[in-house]
Amino acid sequence: MRIVYSPRHRLHADNQELNAGVITPAFELPARVDFILKRIEAVGLGEVIEAKTIDAVAAAVKVHDAGYLQFMADFWTLWLAEGRSGPTMPYVWPARGQRDIRPEHVNGLMGYYSFDGGASFVEGTWEAVQSAVWSAIGAAELIGGGERAAYALCRPPGHHAGSSTMGGYCFINNAAVAAQWFLDHGAKRVTILDVDYHHGNGTQEIFYRRGDVQIVDLHADTAVAYPFFSGRTDETGEGQGEGFTLNLPMPFGTDWQTWGAALDHACRAIEAFGPDVVVVSLGLDTFEGDPISKFRLKREDYPKIGARIAALGRPTLFVQEGGYAVEDIGHNAVGVLSGFEGA
Amino acid sequence: MRIVYSPRHRLHADNQELNAGVITPAFELPARVDFILKRIEAVGLGEVIEAKTIDAVAAAVKVHDAGYLQFMADFWTLWLAEGRSGPTMPYVWPARGQRDIRPEHVNGLMGYYSFDGGASFVEGTWEAVQSAVWSAIGAAELIGGGERAAYALCRPPGHHAGSSTMGGYCFINNAAVAAQWFLDHGAKRVTILDVDYHHGNGTQEIFYRRGDVQIVDLHADTAVAYPFFSGRTDETGEGQGEGFTLNLPMPFGTDWQTWGAALDHACRAIEAFGPDVVVVSLGLDTFEGDPISKFRLKREDYPKIGARIAALGRPTLFVQEGGYAVEDIGHNAVGVLSGFEGA
Ligand SMILES: [Zn+2]
Ligand SMILES: [Zn+2]
Repeated sequence: MRIVYSPRHRLHADNQELNAGVITPAFELPARVDFILKRIEAVGLGEVIEAKTIDAVAAAVKVHDAGYLQFMADFWTLWLAEGRSGPTMPYVWPARGQRDIRPEHVNGLMGYYSFDGGASFVEGTWEAVQSAVWSAIGAAELIGGGERAAYALCRPPGHHAGSSTMGGYCFINNAAVAAQWFLDHGAKRVTILDVDYHHGNGTQEIFYRRGDVQIVDLHADTAVAYPFFSGRTDETGEGQGEGFTLNLPMPFGTDWQTWGAALDHACRAIEAFGPDVVVVSLGLDTFEGDPISKFRLKREDYPKIGARIAALGRPTLFVQEGGYAVEDIGHNAVGVLSGFEGA
Repeated sequence: MRIVYSPRHRLHADNQELNAGVITPAFELPARVDFILKRIEAVGLGEVIEAKTIDAVAAAVKVHDAGYLQFMADFWTLWLAEGRSGPTMPYVWPARGQRDIRPEHVNGLMGYYSFDGGASFVEGTWEAVQSAVWSAIGAAELIGGGERAAYALCRPPGHHAGSSTMGGYCFINNAAVAAQWFLDHGAKRVTILDVDYHHGNGTQEIFYRRGDVQIVDLHADTAVAYPFFSGRTDETGEGQGEGFTLNLPMPFGTDWQTWGAALDHACRAIEAFGPDVVVVSLGLDTFEGDPISKFRLKREDYPKIGARIAALGRPTLFVQEGGYAVEDIGHNAVGVLSGFEGA
């Protein structure tokens, strides 16, 4: 399959994260893309295409709040105007049940538009974020043009980004933007299958009340794992979306026996929904060697993921999400894609 | 007037705060109490009484969620069990509009029960927090016994703590606990007058739907100032509380001319309510020299605050809140109290 990516992802680098009481360099690094590209070349997976420039905001505003996008566009200027030197870390936010009012000052806006301290800006972040949308749409267009599958090598990732909240390294929800693009270009039903270790809270929130996008999400149980505040089995959608969200949480230590069975369950739910297109939020942090996760999938398991998804027999867009064991992320991402191609 | 305090406040020391992208030593220091005590002694304000041990949780649970109090009691043990070394900083929280589910893991619980990164724990924090309640109740009892006024020299402060959220150096809302104590001991109506620079978001939230506690709050406009997400003029209470919340936000740079007029307006609203007792959330961070605030009150303005409050002619409990210019906090706190006594 063909791979779409933008070298502008590199503009988002040297950023930081807040995690359990310490501000550290973020695990989400430019090198992640390098390792994947290197492995793509090694196995000859397919042509790597540089994403062409499009109006990312026009694509994103179909699933994100316009004020949120404007905030991200303005953020670095606002931050510099405050004379800040430290990382761009939200530190006060609206508490549960609090009124929804948008403050004017950047310190308040940061908390208003964030759900964690994991999506920090550097000067080039907004450029990189937009370029990830270019990749997602570019790959979607390949499928729109008749290809069976394509891979959007997006960075920064997207599945934690909600309609108006950033967090978890995510700013714009690339998979959600792509799903909406398919709907706007002829698809009647789209499934987003999220195989990242972490619950895709942003994706769920964006489509929770809609019946045209099915969300199927395998992840670590959010009672004990990040992002904590959604992802339970009793979250099945609301209103027109009732029945179109399926969460499959699993305990720490989950290996292929359990995870593979959950994937099979997920795929049967997708078959029942009958989507025109499947968008896969492809996280590799289910890997046993991942530094921030607690599942135990092995390198040989990843091709099996691709094969099971291929058996759905649907046009399939793979969108890169998490995965932080940089030495292995290339093998595992390309393992899924090769497994899909070989099935 | 007599002063009630507990030396156990010192157990909450060397803690940290997250502020605009940097983790730093907290401005809220044990020395704040020392400066106030020294000035109390210098002017002979009154007898300093050590608070007696009471069941702080039994008093606090009347205005706080029981699960929240249990979380704070358990927190240090949970934190140690995780093998943490950094400051106890929440880093992921429920986004606006998200479902209210309580996670099991301490990392999630921290965000669930916090609205900022400003209330961090050290080993002795929970002991100190309880001792601040001892001081508040001890001082309330003096007024219950017939005294015209008393001063609870509480630390850590309380007015940012909501029914189930910590933040802004605050864990238990000492003023709210005292107000409830008065209601439980014969008062029909209590006013909490919050003169701290910052909006008392916790106090407002606790009593927002109640008609027996009037909230009158002078503060920096939360469109541009911490804590950002409440404190606007159109927040006037709800249900039985409708009309019993009065917010008086003011711009950066406010001096006595504006602030004193707002206090007079506040006092006329209190007179109209006719409370049996006035609880003053006494913050001194309105001072021109305060390191984290942007009002311009001068040392000579503080006795005028006390005098205006005295003119209400109500039994009055002063409860210490913020104020961080340690060299001056003693002068300004005692300035208010002396102004009250001399009026
Ligand atoms: Zn992940
Ligand atoms: Zn304050």
